[in-house]
Amino acid sequence: MARYDFASDNTAPATPEALQALIAANQGFTSGYGTDQVTAKAADLVRAMLDADAEVRFVASGTAANALSLAALCRPFEAVLAHEHAHVCTDETGAPGYFGQGLGLVGLPGPSGKIDAAALNEALDQPDVSYHQSPAALSLTNATEYGTVYTHAALKALIQPAKAKGYGVHLDGARLANAAAAGFELTAIKDLGVDILVVGGTKAGMPPTEAVVIFDRQLARRFDARLKQAGQLPSKGRYYAAPFIGMLQDGAFLRHAAHANAMAKRLEALMPFKVRHPVEANGLFVEMDEPTLQRLHAAGWFAYRFLDGTVRFMCSWATTAEAVDTLGETLGRLR
Amino acid sequence: MARYDFASDNTAPATPEALQALIAANQGFTSGYGTDQVTAKAADLVRAMLDADAEVRFVASGTAANALSLAALCRPFEAVLAHEHAHVCTDETGAPGYFGQGLGLVGLPGPSGKIDAAALNEALDQPDVSYHQSPAALSLTNATEYGTVYTHAALKALIQPAKAKGYGVHLDGARLANAAAAGFELTAIKDLGVDILVVGGTKAGMPPTEAVVIFDRQLARRFDARLKQAGQLPSKGRYYAAPFIGMLQDGAFLRHAAHANAMAKRLEALMPFKVRHPVEANGLFVEMDEPTLQRLHAAGWFAYRFLDGTVRFMCSWATTAEAVDTLGETLGRLR
Amino acid sequence: MARYDFASDNTAPATPEALQALIAANQGFTSGYGTDQVTAKAADLVRAMLDADAEVRFVASGTAANALSLAALCRPFEAVLAHEHAHVCTDETGAPGYFGQGLGLVGLPGPSGKIDAAALNEALDQPDVSYHQSPAALSLTNATEYGTVYTHAALKALIQPAKAKGYGVHLDGARLANAAAAGFELTAIKDLGVDILVVGGTKAGMPPTEAVVIFDRQLARRFDARLKQAGQLPSKGRYYAAPFIGMLQDGAFLRHAAHANAMAKRLEALMPFKVRHPVEANGLFVEMDEPTLQRLHAAGWFAYRFLDGTVRFMCSWATTAEAVDTLGETLGRLR
Amino acid sequence: MARYDFASDNTAPATPEALQALIAANQGFTSGYGTDQVTAKAADLVRAMLDADAEVRFVASGTAANALSLAALCRPFEAVLAHEHAHVCTDETGAPGYFGQGLGLVGLPGPSGKIDAAALNEALDQPDVSYHQSPAALSLTNATEYGTVYTHAALKALIQPAKAKGYGVHLDGARLANAAAAGFELTAIKDLGVDILVVGGTKAGMPPTEAVVIFDRQLARRFDARLKQAGQLPSKGRYYAAPFIGMLQDGAFLRHAAHANAMAKRLEALMPFKVRHPVEANGLFVEMDEPTLQRLHAAGWFAYRFLDGTVRFMCSWATTAEAVDTLGETLGRLR
Repeated sequence: MARYDFASDNTAPATPEALQALIAANQGFTSGYGTDQVTAKAADLVRAMLDADAEVRFVASGTAANALSLAALCRPFEAVLAHEHAHVCTDETGAPGYFGQGLGLVGLPGPSGKIDAAALNEALDQPDVSYHQSPAALSLTNATEYGTVYTHAALKALIQPAKAKGYGVHLDGARLANAAAAGFELTAIKDLGVDILVVGGTKAGMPPTEAVVIFDRQLARRFDARLKQAGQLPSKGRYYAAPFIGMLQDGAFLRHAAHANAMAKRLEALMPFKVRHPVEANGLFVEMDEPTLQRLHAAGWFAYRFLDGTVRFMCSWATTAEAVDTLGETLGRLR
Repeated sequence: MARYDFASDNTAPATPEALQALIAANQGFTSGYGTDQVTAKAADLVRAMLDADAEVRFVASGTAANALSLAALCRPFEAVLAHEHAHVCTDETGAPGYFGQGLGLVGLPGPSGKIDAAALNEALDQPDVSYHQSPAALSLTNATEYGTVYTHAALKALIQPAKAKGYGVHLDGARLANAAAAGFELTAIKDLGVDILVVGGTKAGMPPTEAVVIFDRQLARRFDARLKQAGQLPSKGRYYAAPFIGMLQDGAFLRHAAHANAMAKRLEALMPFKVRHPVEANGLFVEMDEPTLQRLHAAGWFAYRFLDGTVRFMCSWATTAEAVDTLGETLGRLR
Repeated sequence: MARYDFASDNTAPATPEALQALIAANQGFTSGYGTDQVTAKAADLVRAMLDADAEVRFVASGTAANALSLAALCRPFEAVLAHEHAHVCTDETGAPGYFGQGLGLVGLPGPSGKIDAAALNEALDQPDVSYHQSPAALSLTNATEYGTVYTHAALKALIQPAKAKGYGVHLDGARLANAAAAGFELTAIKDLGVDILVVGGTKAGMPPTEAVVIFDRQLARRFDARLKQAGQLPSKGRYYAAPFIGMLQDGAFLRHAAHANAMAKRLEALMPFKVRHPVEANGLFVEMDEPTLQRLHAAGWFAYRFLDGTVRFMCSWATTAEAVDTLGETLGRLR
Repeated sequence: MARYDFASDNTAPATPEALQALIAANQGFTSGYGTDQVTAKAADLVRAMLDADAEVRFVASGTAANALSLAALCRPFEAVLAHEHAHVCTDETGAPGYFGQGLGLVGLPGPSGKIDAAALNEALDQPDVSYHQSPAALSLTNATEYGTVYTHAALKALIQPAKAKGYGVHLDGARLANAAAAGFELTAIKDLGVDILVVGGTKAGMPPTEAVVIFDRQLARRFDARLKQAGQLPSKGRYYAAPFIGMLQDGAFLRHAAHANAMAKRLEALMPFKVRHPVEANGLFVEMDEPTLQRLHAAGWFAYRFLDGTVRFMCSWATTAEAVDTLGETLGRLR
């Protein structure tokens, strides 16, 4: 009997709050394509969470949310600067280039998933030449792919030079809840210079849904047509919006993320293998050789080898302390 | 208090069967990206319904399902033949061209949403010239945009000459349930020459989900990568698959569609305005002048003027006989 | 022995002036990608001809020039308004949609290739809805596909309402020389509100080359990267620029176009078939049944049936009076 | 007075043979879009040179030729394997992704511009996963970007495993003439498994023109429409074809390339800086610090720092022994 508890934070079911809100929204006739009251209420809650007067849309997938955002910030003969291990660079089958008609991705190095400021500045200093795709946007991720969390100040230091060149800024918040639970102030995002933010619903414990938050209102012009053309303006919008209501109206969004983060910490305390990156959110990345990983799989636990060669363990709202302890025990035996 | 009952068949909530299945699927950890058991079971049920050994995928939107299908059948310098009022031509913001990098759409005429065979043959007989996008695929819709239903024989007559030229065939089944409830045999589709079929979940009474059925297995190669790149391979695939289980396992799919069709017939019986197209599925299209439509809106009923100038009334699984009668009464007063 | 004299205005060779300039440019080493002195001089001459301080680029084909211009003015979920028989709509294999990632083309009616102002205004008045590609640009052609010529006032009347809505304007000048020779003032273009103008070299009697003139300098940002990515920034730019030098430095551009226009007038005088459109530039469009056209072909003269069903005869710089007279004689016999 | 002699092999003018053929083609009326006799003759000569019964087209730019070839071999959710410093990866502004709607490029390492076989095999052995763009084509370059030349056997060793997986193969022959002059047998290409070959005209000493050779005839279906849509099917095709006639009909293609290669050898003999890569074709890559390069520029000679940090000197048909000697002398003084 295979266990996917730690394979990813999208192997979990939806939280009770998200599901109840979806069930509650499932009544009566409504207008379509995001013009309904459920969608309006969810958007208000997102704005309230961010304390920002921004445009909010709900879409079906993080890949689409990110790719559409980058396509809005960048022309095909331009490029996006991102961490070389950012999800948009490594795990989305080239979606930014597909949605953005070949726009380029320039991967930047940096420890534990955070872009190195010097590397960014070097990229920003490259001269514009016609035979390269020069950057037009910066894409950041918080929490990062390696379970670390940027501070407000760290993000500002990266965003400021990009904005100074007139570039757009995208923040991939697939795990924004985990970042917030780790102390990242959501109401401070509006002052960072972010143009488009994706607030992850799926990994936070919802059925598939993501919120696209457009701080730069000029970018919002005809955004619904952009979404519709890309198959991301659902006729029955309430099913993408309702889970956000369930999660945002009483703090479940942060509460569940805090639990996921705590489970990662608990696992860290039990971990007999070397943990490579600081455990600041809901993931652990440990050094484990291949035979050991195979034995872990044989013991029924799925975990994946990640981009930097470590083995990744992800916790979610649904991760139980008991599961953590059982896994810890198993790992102890494998050591 | 505005009523959207008849504005579209996507204004209704999800059926109890669909929602219960979604709730039932919402437990435990599963593997991601469509590799889970819920998805496997739903795909089996779709195959059983069609009595076909085909590849099945579940995606978030009909626009994406159609556009990805056409992109799989057609290169950018080629075109799709479709009814001039087909959804892919008129209501998807050019999605086929976006997903298909500029592929062309050639609109063909025909009464009540059905492609005129002579017009199709004329299009098929056009010589290939380099300065035009020559056709490579035929897109059909059943039930049609005008609430009519193709017979098996009628579809065969359109498909045969297209296949004879080596072209691909796409069947948009956004309202396939309604066609089936009107007598269109679903198990006969596999012999029609259809390469890709979209089985509509949304309009049939599910939360947003559509099944893409790939009869031509060669087209399925790397289809998951195609979906992922397009933001249509959800990590939590069970939420797109589960509603199909709820609807297919005990016949709710057809049962609800039969109800919707019956409601359309009931409305037809009460309709004081001229009905322009045969009422074979779940929609009515009536001749109504603008002041009357405005008065209908003022009376609280939303209905839209459609492409051919008629006013459209759509019924769904959730349409009640009482609502039909109340609307009929209102219309009687407006006459 | 087939004769292509009147089949198109691109069946002619290059003019002596264009060829001599190309030969003259063919010496010594130069820097690449449009940074050479030949390109600089040609751009100056284009600016002088237009009396405009605009960015000028030279590209290989009219299709690419038009498609790149429209892609610069329009996002994929938006549309270009153009005459329904404009070259971009009918004869470029969907290039605007390819270069513009599926951008839409909305064909407008109008007599003799000129957009009907009422039809344009109706299109401009359509409400923005998410399920349609709403217009973002207007594309005009002068001389038109039917050999007619817009006046400055007529263009202004079409452009003004489009600009009032903030839309971009593209002017396809594949036959701008012929329009100019017919009295269209080139120095007045700069005040019309045109954002991007394509000055046709090929049909004016050059080897393949077109000038892209960008009046709105903001659109010129990174235009070389746009061109390079699209395969339209040639390393040996001088070969695209030189012919313009030959044609512009002493008035050959207009002189040859005036000759072409005069030949069309001469043919009109001899034409035994009904001429459908005013002969204002270098083309004639006549009403001729199919058997007659076949006999014309049998007599060795190529001419094509055009979009409106007429048979088109095009004159060029290389059309001789003798050829016109011989054709006229032949046509007389076929009548 | 700046000298561009060694800056690139596209800074030179066209050869007398190419230009004379262009002049000779510049007479009379012809049919358009590549259906003329000049184009037919040039295609025959290309086939004869390759001893291959292949489809041949002539296009305006190498970037377009390469990008269209890769787009023909690869779908958007797939990738092309190429040397990490191949022109398609580094110097074409992402053109493959633009023409190929986001298709991926996977850069492989290897000394002196040649793909390392082990690295290729490792890439070929990667499992297909939906979240990556899996390879569908291999792109090779001969002569390479570093002036080295693959042998027939070396290419076969790279192509065979790619073909074994069913992948397409593209050969960028921007400097095929130089490779041939270095002993690479052109008539042997047809047995290598190459699907599409680009025969460079521009760098071989022609005005802008490249030949696209399609060995796999199935790929040629509707290729003219593909070209037309991409702005690469010129109405006046003879101007792209004629230079090939001039260069191929009496061996000038190889003769001029042999001269360019000889000039590179001559420069190598005089070179006071360390030459990093074997000088097998027409380029030299030397180790030179920045101050020295600046002094070289100050002395009036343009040369560029290349991708591997060396300074590149390119020779062409027009490079004179005198120029080589003068440059050698200058370099000697800078040492």
